[in-house]
Amino acid sequence: MNMPLNAPPLRRLDATGPDFETQYRALFARMADENAEIDARAADILRDVQSRGDAAVLDCTRRFDRLDVPDMAALEISQAELRAALAAITPEQRSALEVAASRVRRYHERQLQQVGQSWEYRDEDGTLLGQKVTPLDRVGIYVPGGKAAYPSSVLMNAIPAHVAGVQDIIMVVPTPGGERNPLVLAAAAVAGVSRAFAIGGAQAVGALAYGTATVPAVDKIVGPGNAYVAAAKRRVFGICGIDMIAGPSEILVLADGSTPPDWVAMDLFSQAEHDELAQSILLCPDAAYIDAVASAIHRLLPDMPRKAIIEASLAGRGALVQVRDMAQACELANRIAPEHLEISAQDPHQFVPLLKHAGALFLGAYTSESLGDYCAGPNHVLPTSGTARFSSPLGVYDFIKRSSIIEVSAEGAQRLGRIASVLAHGERLTAHARAAEMRLR
Amino acid sequence: MNMPLNAPPLRRLDATGPDFETQYRALFARMADENAEIDARAADILRDVQSRGDAAVLDCTRRFDRLDVPDMAALEISQAELRAALAAITPEQRSALEVAASRVRRYHERQLQQVGQSWEYRDEDGTLLGQKVTPLDRVGIYVPGGKAAYPSSVLMNAIPAHVAGVQDIIMVVPTPGGERNPLVLAAAAVAGVSRAFAIGGAQAVGALAYGTATVPAVDKIVGPGNAYVAAAKRRVFGICGIDMIAGPSEILVLADGSTPPDWVAMDLFSQAEHDELAQSILLCPDAAYIDAVASAIHRLLPDMPRKAIIEASLAGRGALVQVRDMAQACELANRIAPEHLEISAQDPHQFVPLLKHAGALFLGAYTSESLGDYCAGPNHVLPTSGTARFSSPLGVYDFIKRSSIIEVSAEGAQRLGRIASVLAHGERLTAHARAAEMRLR
Repeated sequence: MNMPLNAPPLRRLDATGPDFETQYRALFARMADENAEIDARAADILRDVQSRGDAAVLDCTRRFDRLDVPDMAALEISQAELRAALAAITPEQRSALEVAASRVRRYHERQLQQVGQSWEYRDEDGTLLGQKVTPLDRVGIYVPGGKAAYPSSVLMNAIPAHVAGVQDIIMVVPTPGGERNPLVLAAAAVAGVSRAFAIGGAQAVGALAYGTATVPAVDKIVGPGNAYVAAAKRRVFGICGIDMIAGPSEILVLADGSTPPDWVAMDLFSQAEHDELAQSILLCPDAAYIDAVASAIHRLLPDMPRKAIIEASLAGRGALVQVRDMAQACELANRIAPEHLEISAQDPHQFVPLLKHAGALFLGAYTSESLGDYCAGPNHVLPTSGTARFSSPLGVYDFIKRSSIIEVSAEGAQRLGRIASVLAHGERLTAHARAAEMRLR
Repeated sequence: MNMPLNAPPLRRLDATGPDFETQYRALFARMADENAEIDARAADILRDVQSRGDAAVLDCTRRFDRLDVPDMAALEISQAELRAALAAITPEQRSALEVAASRVRRYHERQLQQVGQSWEYRDEDGTLLGQKVTPLDRVGIYVPGGKAAYPSSVLMNAIPAHVAGVQDIIMVVPTPGGERNPLVLAAAAVAGVSRAFAIGGAQAVGALAYGTATVPAVDKIVGPGNAYVAAAKRRVFGICGIDMIAGPSEILVLADGSTPPDWVAMDLFSQAEHDELAQSILLCPDAAYIDAVASAIHRLLPDMPRKAIIEASLAGRGALVQVRDMAQACELANRIAPEHLEISAQDPHQFVPLLKHAGALFLGAYTSESLGDYCAGPNHVLPTSGTARFSSPLGVYDFIKRSSIIEVSAEGAQRLGRIASVLAHGERLTAHARAAEMRLR
């Protein structure tokens, strides 16, 4: 069924108009706070997994994934099965996975070069100060499964962990009805996943956080999931680490009017097709170009297999916004702090210094977000919902941690001891002061 | 009142004995999950602050801090007051604060050198890939106040933010009864705090997360607080960033028997004096040395001003553990993943490669933890409760974030487009595939 021609799929706004502040706030009104009921149900599931372990995970898998197996062994996906999946996909698919993996690996190796080095220095008293970097021992990666199965997410989650030096990478992926996605399994084989389990939801988060007889407890859980997964991750934070709480995906396109309008329209679709809550926004100073993109949207939408989702997303949360100039577009971009930020302009580099907050910057007409999603090299797990103000793409830095190193010389203890003593007495922590004073000659 | 001489303040365990596993589990039994009532009350306070802003903060401050003021302006601590506090403390205190600050700054500048650089490279098709590093715009630092006021925490929280390039550093510190601690204010002046408010608890976390008419919303909240603060931070995570959920402080001392036993006893005290839930543990292969430390504890404890707290902490959660050898001590240390790890040994460096998980390593007899707490240079905000398995000391890396940069050349779009197309079709994301295919010639 074609879209009704009179339907306005995408609102038009004018960033220079008097109503814009109100319109802006409506457009970016935060989703209602996490649903209290989802949170309570996730908490129940976590408690159950913590107390009953495998039995609870099996029960949940039966209920939520319609998958009834006698024991957890039946839910482990063996290395042999991962390798068999890799052997069974088409050569074209295999090559695409392998080239993508190698590009992702190379990019993340650059991150490791930067953050993976321990360092130390001595001060003038001979006191040694340093920072020791070590990889996490074991991590869990959550890969969405079922309706939407994302082999690319396997690569994006597992490869940075692998590059960081994590020894055990435990993948969980729900397989509703028991259907195991061959591309997901093949990607796990390519990315160096250590063990894989066909479990998902809050029960998988609980199994990874607490450990069960079958699923080993991990030190950190990464990867996006649905609202139950997000609620469960928030709750286990502290028992283990988590990467971030993922919200709906977003794209913001800054266009100067030089990119073919069809390309921009399709880039907006590629975000909108994820789900109805995804957000696609264009900022452009050129009204005629916005018209051209709007008409490309009308023309291209009817042929999209996911047109109902795209239309709902664009109508609900999308916008074509006319701005005064590209400088205003950059200001708005900083306020939005989008997950994906395309700068579809002839000289995109001039705007980079003006852009402070974004998960990833896609520069120039040829850089469609989808190239970044799959194979450019940088990670596609990015901060959403404005969290790019304070957080980063998933990276090697998520899979290492630092320990401070201090070795105070006998000499240094004389000088530092006096300072520590003064400050400790100021805080009325006498044992702290005495410990420093005892080292004075 | 002296400690009764027959009181066994510190349990003795034998790590080579058959009961050790049971004893170990009892000693490290996780605290009961966060109190559901505290969590619910923190949630109520956050909701109130979110909806009523300043008025809610004023009400909470009246109730919880017994501080009744007419408006929020009365709770802002001006720059003039911070400077006046710095001018009014003793020259010895001022110098101690300034030397500590300069050492902390120098250490964190090394971190900035490592993580603060943006980078990029071009692949063989001319595609540009990179990572852009930017500081956070505005952060909130929570400084405990009241019974325990910690000027050193002001330095440790504010300086890394300042070094990272954060423009606005907003300090909150509760002042029960209205008493403003001069050393805390002086430390804020030294550390470059932009604005300070005499508020605390969940209400301060809410004010920083949501913003009020008076308190600006921040991008990240760091710093330890009580259980309400911890619960509130967990809840606002996602609205803004948080550093970590702080638990009670801990020290683990690995001793080969070469350090004066009094020094080790006092180091154990300096952790225990923080609060009754703090944990001080000694691992040592030498039974006679453990006896000597135990007797030093008995001898030194009666003179400590905080002896009741120390005794409760040692009796409740402390232990003197005899190990087979230092190698076993290192294994146990990795299992414990302590916040503070002292290696009080003659050649401490030999053990560093064996130690994977610790917030900070203190090497050698002269390196009392208290030197690190105040002025060695590294941060004293460290991961507690075993979270050193996956997290790091507070650092410059907490105050920057990264954006990926991708600029695909027309050439590169040909090769990457084909790969992205194959993978996108494999995920049934047709718009993603089409966006890539449109860029093919």
